[in-house]
Amino acid sequence: MQDKLTLMIPGPTPVPETVLQALGRHPIGHRSAEFQKIVKRTTEQLQWLHQTSNDVLVITGSGTAAMEAGIINVLSKGDKVLCGDNGKFGERWVKVAKAYGLEVQVIKAEWGQPLDPEAFRAALEADTAKEIRAVIVTHSETSTGVINDLQTIASYGQAHGTALTIADCVTSLGATDVPMDRWGVDVIGSGSQKGYMMPPGLAFVAMSEKAWEASKRSDLPKFYLDLSKYRKSAADNSNPFTPGINLYFALEAALDMMQKEGLEAIFARHARHRAAAQAGMEAMGLPLYAAKGHGSPAITAVAPEGIDAEALRKKVKERFDILLAGGQDHLKGKVFRIGHLGFVCDRDVLTAVAAIEATLQELGLGKGTTGAGVAAAAAALAP
Amino acid sequence: MQDKLTLMIPGPTPVPETVLQALGRHPIGHRSAEFQKIVKRTTEQLQWLHQTSNDVLVITGSGTAAMEAGIINVLSKGDKVLCGDNGKFGERWVKVAKAYGLEVQVIKAEWGQPLDPEAFRAALEADTAKEIRAVIVTHSETSTGVINDLQTIASYGQAHGTALTIADCVTSLGATDVPMDRWGVDVIGSGSQKGYMMPPGLAFVAMSEKAWEASKRSDLPKFYLDLSKYRKSAADNSNPFTPGINLYFALEAALDMMQKEGLEAIFARHARHRAAAQAGMEAMGLPLYAAKGHGSPAITAVAPEGIDAEALRKKVKERFDILLAGGQDHLKGKVFRIGHLGFVCDRDVLTAVAAIEATLQELGLGKGTTGAGVAAAAAALAP
Repeated sequence: MQDKLTLMIPGPTPVPETVLQALGRHPIGHRSAEFQKIVKRTTEQLQWLHQTSNDVLVITGSGTAAMEAGIINVLSKGDKVLCGDNGKFGERWVKVAKAYGLEVQVIKAEWGQPLDPEAFRAALEADTAKEIRAVIVTHSETSTGVINDLQTIASYGQAHGTALTIADCVTSLGATDVPMDRWGVDVIGSGSQKGYMMPPGLAFVAMSEKAWEASKRSDLPKFYLDLSKYRKSAADNSNPFTPGINLYFALEAALDMMQKEGLEAIFARHARHRAAAQAGMEAMGLPLYAAKGHGSPAITAVAPEGIDAEALRKKVKERFDILLAGGQDHLKGKVFRIGHLGFVCDRDVLTAVAAIEATLQELGLGKGTTGAGVAAAAAALAP
Repeated sequence: MQDKLTLMIPGPTPVPETVLQALGRHPIGHRSAEFQKIVKRTTEQLQWLHQTSNDVLVITGSGTAAMEAGIINVLSKGDKVLCGDNGKFGERWVKVAKAYGLEVQVIKAEWGQPLDPEAFRAALEADTAKEIRAVIVTHSETSTGVINDLQTIASYGQAHGTALTIADCVTSLGATDVPMDRWGVDVIGSGSQKGYMMPPGLAFVAMSEKAWEASKRSDLPKFYLDLSKYRKSAADNSNPFTPGINLYFALEAALDMMQKEGLEAIFARHARHRAAAQAGMEAMGLPLYAAKGHGSPAITAVAPEGIDAEALRKKVKERFDILLAGGQDHLKGKVFRIGHLGFVCDRDVLTAVAAIEATLQELGLGKGTTGAGVAAAAAALAP
């Protein structure tokens, strides 16, 4: 049916009507006093979301642009960095670092497993010469549905003294607690089509004073992603380059809604949806892909043994107009992922579980008692 | 009055209702077959607009991102480039080139004057060692309202053989004839909030085969702006990073409208509006800033002698809700600019002239016969 699509992928995520209406307003001049007000307001809202007094800068681009900006503004050619890699996005930051000639020490974990904070601690403690300039870590690994222990890893970065912690919080910010200042994270990158409940197009980089200090010696070439230009303009509630003006309208509307709901309620909602998605899948006999206790509050990856995950995903779309995400790279066909990030309510998660259960039943692939998935999800959602 | 603002600045430009409605649709997955259809369709439309069979790639970002991508993908550190500079955007490309360690030979003209193509010819002919790798030129210089002779400059680049022509067509594309293939332009950068009749957020880079050939030896670091990634994804009607999905909806709607109008009609409309704006200003005794015969079809810069241009501009906004652009840098207070680019009809230009004339009259600053500006503009608009 036309216009019936429900997004249950980890981005783009569903967008509230209020936000879409803001998006569809006629643009105004980006050098006007009226727009400066929006920049000022949204900057304060972004600081609230990041739980920080640091600068939070807005780039028109994707989450990758934000992360690249975070990396290339605080480092110099040949700098040594530790980079966590337990999924597609961890891999990506290794590639970005290498593209700019950084010396990358990769700390790996198998896909589906969390990064081991102790591996970071050991590498940082062994670095008595203080050559490690940054630790790059993905908080919520979108490809596997694993949440890494950013808090602990950041604490080891802090203890090291020289190393900055640069965190990909693209699918964690707005879904779970990321208190930037309290955890001592120096750089956070995120993107609008995730917890922000907005369409894609804006990306966000928060920078600590320590990160700005490091940026002074950065010699990597950049222009559009040169954050010093964004900081200078932000002081005047402006942008160095023409920003996505309509996306700013949407940003203000979405952050308004988030502030009304409150951080605690938002985090509790995502935790509840993780519990419901996990319980639902397990009750249906569908194994979770992420290691137990390390599932992301934003996304649940499922590895249905003996079932073509891609065929199941497509059937759910065809029958119920619910778009689930497939597996990436070597997980294609082996894994499907349920996005429960952003503008998602209990009904959406219950519905996704019900649709998956009904599809398995239609395909004659249901294991255990039919209805068990929905029952388990409903129990997890109950107040 | 609320919601009465009319944009007559060189970006963002007015956006048709149809395009805003497309923008406000709920996003779909960017890895879906439905989105691939949109990428395929808009790519063909973009090729039509660029009059090219070359790749035209879409970046989520500003026009500066597109130009930076065009420059850093085809050049290497230490490469010699010729860069035209007769305004703020010419200046910017010099800065981008220098930020990446290119050796820049600047060909300057005073602000308000066009670049002299003969200066490019002389420099290129003198380069018998074929060390010049690229000529960077701004077609329509937004800061001064001057159109440079891209066609002739590109022909000298072609005659040189090695040098690529990289053109900033941000405010010329969709306003005047830019036949990429026929003129032999190798790289064209543009942005959505200009002739495209869209809000800002998408940027476009067209690349000739010669440019792709040159890209193979490029050693400048990049990731988000690495066009080889975009080309690879484009072959699959996709994007390497999550694109501005809703902006794509708007792009398709806007290009539909442009195709219905037709290139010749679009160019004739912009030429007519340039003539009307120029005639109206001159009839009011307001001197044009761009040298005679070199005014851009997208924007008319006016230097009202003895009048505070900024005060006039603000008054027009206050009284009539028409937003004109001010002067940039040293032109602040000395120049105002009328944008007549994109979704602008005869009525809009007539209205802008009338509003400026009425404001001068209210301020007691009118020169010559009141009504002369509108009469001259009307004559220029008459079929």
